[in-house]
Amino acid sequence: MPSLGRPFRRTSRSTSAEGWAREQERTSTRSPRVTLDASPGLLPLLRERRSTRSFDETHVLADDELRAMLEAARWAPSAGNSQPWAFLVARRGDAAHQRLVPLLSRGNQSWAPRASALVFTLHQVASGPEEDALTYSDYAAYDLGQAVAQLSVQALALGLVVHQFAGFDHEGLAAQAGVPRHWQVTTGVALGRELAADEPGDTGARERDRRPRTRKPLAELAFGATFGEPVDLG
Amino acid sequence: MPSLGRPFRRTSRSTSAEGWAREQERTSTRSPRVTLDASPGLLPLLRERRSTRSFDETHVLADDELRAMLEAARWAPSAGNSQPWAFLVARRGDAAHQRLVPLLSRGNQSWAPRASALVFTLHQVASGPEEDALTYSDYAAYDLGQAVAQLSVQALALGLVVHQFAGFDHEGLAAQAGVPRHWQVTTGVALGRELAADEPGDTGARERDRRPRTRKPLAELAFGATFGEPVDLG
Repeated sequence: MPSLGRPFRRTSRSTSAEGWAREQERTSTRSPRVTLDASPGLLPLLRERRSTRSFDETHVLADDELRAMLEAARWAPSAGNSQPWAFLVARRGDAAHQRLVPLLSRGNQSWAPRASALVFTLHQVASGPEEDALTYSDYAAYDLGQAVAQLSVQALALGLVVHQFAGFDHEGLAAQAGVPRHWQVTTGVALGRELAADEPGDTGARERDRRPRTRKPLAELAFGATFGEPVDLG
Repeated sequence: MPSLGRPFRRTSRSTSAEGWAREQERTSTRSPRVTLDASPGLLPLLRERRSTRSFDETHVLADDELRAMLEAARWAPSAGNSQPWAFLVARRGDAAHQRLVPLLSRGNQSWAPRASALVFTLHQVASGPEEDALTYSDYAAYDLGQAVAQLSVQALALGLVVHQFAGFDHEGLAAQAGVPRHWQVTTGVALGRELAADEPGDTGARERDRRPRTRKPLAELAFGATFGEPVDLG
């Protein structure tokens, strides 16, 4: 489960991510979540992707790896080729990392700083003040999501792991980084090398990483011509 | 360039997608868009992705292929594992296709119906009426984008091509498919086999498909600790 941030709305009174997770478990009678084994045919790279917390805090990301991941985001499709995305890159140990890590939520402080890099993502939410500014699109958040997914696929192909999170001080980061008002700070992406099972690491993080991944059944999300009626897949 | 729909906002007075494209070309002095060759290290699958219009109108999508693509979307990450996405699947020749194709914009009518399948995407925009409804997330559009990108990667890995579009009657589709008010129809995704260069096809579509893909330079989207200041990639 990715780590939640403040903009996440909840229907219940619980305000902690942990409370929300417990609530999700309680509601599982309505929407049974099946585990990964039910998905034959899926690319191994997508099948094995998970939001790990067990980062190798000695691993250093090569410039070429970071460049390839950013290129993967850059070449994502977007509405009218509007490219409404931007990224703030902080590598463990550099000045950006030192400035931005203190803005993480307490929960994310416990694991995210060990990642080799933290990439904060932004999407454009209005047209800029310049006369020839790039056109704003209503699909900007959607397109940023696509770009981050492409970045993630490139990372996985490089043997790295990816863990997105939203739990950080978005306004503080916007102020710290001088983000223009027509851009919105969106998510954080931790990138790095996952610790192997026989390497020493944080026990709590390890335990959480071993929990089975679950999803709603396909019949609850893939419909035919009518919303709610599962598509016939033979 | 993906095909635009009505929700796309423009800063200029031009209202046609073509006018918008021309405007983008004019503004290229400020934001030079470089072609694909400048991107070494990028996965071939992502490097060669493009939004083709030249679909093989005889190709039939296998059930297993469609299932694998939907599974790829299903296993995407989402905020708090909220999974705020849904898909309406129409295969060329089936009843859903016959009902939904007339809702496409005139421009998209010219190429999209030849694709093997059209998948219309939706994201959740509010909590549902049920007491135990899944929690709504502010990241729903972003997460749908991630799911569609994973679906696209799976399609590309299967040797298929993908072309997203927004130009269709969103309200008409919501009415036709009985979409609940707390879900928003978002994009269409055309999936199928691309015609080879020596196969007969639509000449206009071919010509558009051959145009070079362009993007903003990396320095305009990948920053360090300060927005606008390019990250040092060595």
